[in-house]
Amino acid sequence: MEASGLSALLLTCEPEFRYFSGFQSQFWESPTRPWFLVLPAHGKPIAVIPTIGQSAMEQTWLEDIRSWPAPRPGDDGVSLLADTLRNTAGLGGRIGVPLGHESHLRMPAGDFLALRAQLDGLELVDARPLLRDLMCIKSEAEIDKIRYICRLVSDAFLALPEQIDPYMTEREICKRLQIDILARGADSTPYLMGASGPGSYASIIMGPTDRTLTPGDVLIIDTGATFDGYFCDFDRNFAFGPPSAAAERAHAVVHAATAAGFAAARPGATTHQVWSAMWTVLEQGGALGNDVGRMGHGLGMLLTEWPSNMAGDDTVLLPGMVMTLEPGMEFAPRQLMVHEENIVIRESGPEWLTRRAPEDMPVIG
Amino acid sequence: MEASGLSALLLTCEPEFRYFSGFQSQFWESPTRPWFLVLPAHGKPIAVIPTIGQSAMEQTWLEDIRSWPAPRPGDDGVSLLADTLRNTAGLGGRIGVPLGHESHLRMPAGDFLALRAQLDGLELVDARPLLRDLMCIKSEAEIDKIRYICRLVSDAFLALPEQIDPYMTEREICKRLQIDILARGADSTPYLMGASGPGSYASIIMGPTDRTLTPGDVLIIDTGATFDGYFCDFDRNFAFGPPSAAAERAHAVVHAATAAGFAAARPGATTHQVWSAMWTVLEQGGALGNDVGRMGHGLGMLLTEWPSNMAGDDTVLLPGMVMTLEPGMEFAPRQLMVHEENIVIRESGPEWLTRRAPEDMPVIG
Repeated sequence: MEASGLSALLLTCEPEFRYFSGFQSQFWESPTRPWFLVLPAHGKPIAVIPTIGQSAMEQTWLEDIRSWPAPRPGDDGVSLLADTLRNTAGLGGRIGVPLGHESHLRMPAGDFLALRAQLDGLELVDARPLLRDLMCIKSEAEIDKIRYICRLVSDAFLALPEQIDPYMTEREICKRLQIDILARGADSTPYLMGASGPGSYASIIMGPTDRTLTPGDVLIIDTGATFDGYFCDFDRNFAFGPPSAAAERAHAVVHAATAAGFAAARPGATTHQVWSAMWTVLEQGGALGNDVGRMGHGLGMLLTEWPSNMAGDDTVLLPGMVMTLEPGMEFAPRQLMVHEENIVIRESGPEWLTRRAPEDMPVIG
Repeated sequence: MEASGLSALLLTCEPEFRYFSGFQSQFWESPTRPWFLVLPAHGKPIAVIPTIGQSAMEQTWLEDIRSWPAPRPGDDGVSLLADTLRNTAGLGGRIGVPLGHESHLRMPAGDFLALRAQLDGLELVDARPLLRDLMCIKSEAEIDKIRYICRLVSDAFLALPEQIDPYMTEREICKRLQIDILARGADSTPYLMGASGPGSYASIIMGPTDRTLTPGDVLIIDTGATFDGYFCDFDRNFAFGPPSAAAERAHAVVHAATAAGFAAARPGATTHQVWSAMWTVLEQGGALGNDVGRMGHGLGMLLTEWPSNMAGDDTVLLPGMVMTLEPGMEFAPRQLMVHEENIVIRESGPEWLTRRAPEDMPVIG
């Protein structure tokens, strides 16, 4: 903050709030009330929060907790927050707030504009680069949580073929996996997508549906499950009956592309280089295209975090970054094959967090 | 929109986007990419979305789908969206965007400011009142989905005592319930809070923890589970061994307060009147206070929606509104008792969506 000339930071979203306060609650699921955290350049963070959170917040390491009886539509914390920022930053101070790419403010936009108008003499500047550079480097405690959920879900994927049969629906199969992941100790499964089709699937962001699997289908399941507030994010493909030669080959290509991405993901390499290593394999393997826009991303408190493995992105990989490798391609018209693993960048090179998928798709039935 | 003098609406959040487009995807869990929906005053909505969503969006009733290769940090859809708004609204048009209470914009705040600057001649005005007035009245199809998840979770709560024992932890009990809710057919359990304490619990927004239940404890579980994109939101209390006389009495009081709130929740009544009917019973029953700030709220695509049952709120209840009744009180220092049910307002009066909780807490062990 000192290097950026900031007197204070203002944070409104759950991950940032939790990162600096240790406050962890499912209550953020309710969008009614805004919560604010003010980080002075020196001293402990200040919570400016609804009264309903006061006693719970007192259990954290924070000492300065200011609350108002939310919901209060006429002034839902705005004047209290403005007072706090003015007192914290002092005259002419600069306040950092996330304004940039891959951020949003969890407060009414009208209240943000009203807040700006009440900060006479204070400047609001974008703190997104500062926050993303800090939060993309995970501590060993954070890496341990991500590895735990990655291994747990890897085991659930490995056990899935024993639990399913052809002629179940996408929804039934995904439900089976979801329950197994929770029974194994995950806290939640905010993302659990399933898609299938004859030969292969056509989308990786819809489903699961009531479509019944039949021989010749390929099913992809992509899942973001959490343990103690940290995500995994990876997928697995399953063949129902022997796969077509094209699907089998496409799976071998995305598997090899993942290996190429892994080899490239050394400290000092750029995200463009990781992308390029994967894309080269896909292109040689017959890729018609990729409309995902990137092939992997950061991972942690959110399902997808900065940076992105994509063409032209020159972010340098550093030790402690947790990333996904997600090569995917259209290998025939409206036939996709996507693969994904999770890794952490170490001084000595990358390390798998997921248990590596088998080179050949498991065959069901 | 015509009455409000609006040429177009701009929407950025999942529930609003789904409400007008029918597009339902878990992909919103990834915060990387913004998605925009533009509703002209006349004609079909226009989707302005990342390329990754193009083929899936083509399956909806929308025809005009414009996409850009997100993530693209330099211009993540802003210029495409500005073009679309200028063409749709015409010179001097007014564009409605949610700016007010209980809303936020799911796009970088910096991009919102940049968008404003590119809309020369167009005025951005708050569309939050228009949207909340529209979306708070549920169709029969929406009510059916909410009733389905309310009944399903009611049944899971009723079956829970058979599945748990004293000396389990809060976390183990909540996990048992979570899995049962999913096995019964819920899609997800985004909110499943558990809290306990000797005599009763002290917070309703934290937990579950690894605290072991022992005789004399009261446990509350509050859950927001979903079916086909619609939430239930209600809680149940459980006594471990015979409850204290004070806890037993407090439960009877919040149960009676719910009945009073139900009786008051007729079309034409205000949310203040519903609050007042419940608070009168709580006060007569020995309430020391309530720091929740309200006693129930709207319910639907979100866990908590407008309006709030609270003092001074003069929102008039209308047929089709789905509401929670949530009377709670501190009945002894740091001892809370909270109860919650879900209802729909009908022409003829309120109708339960949850199966009404028993007057006495179930006793475990």
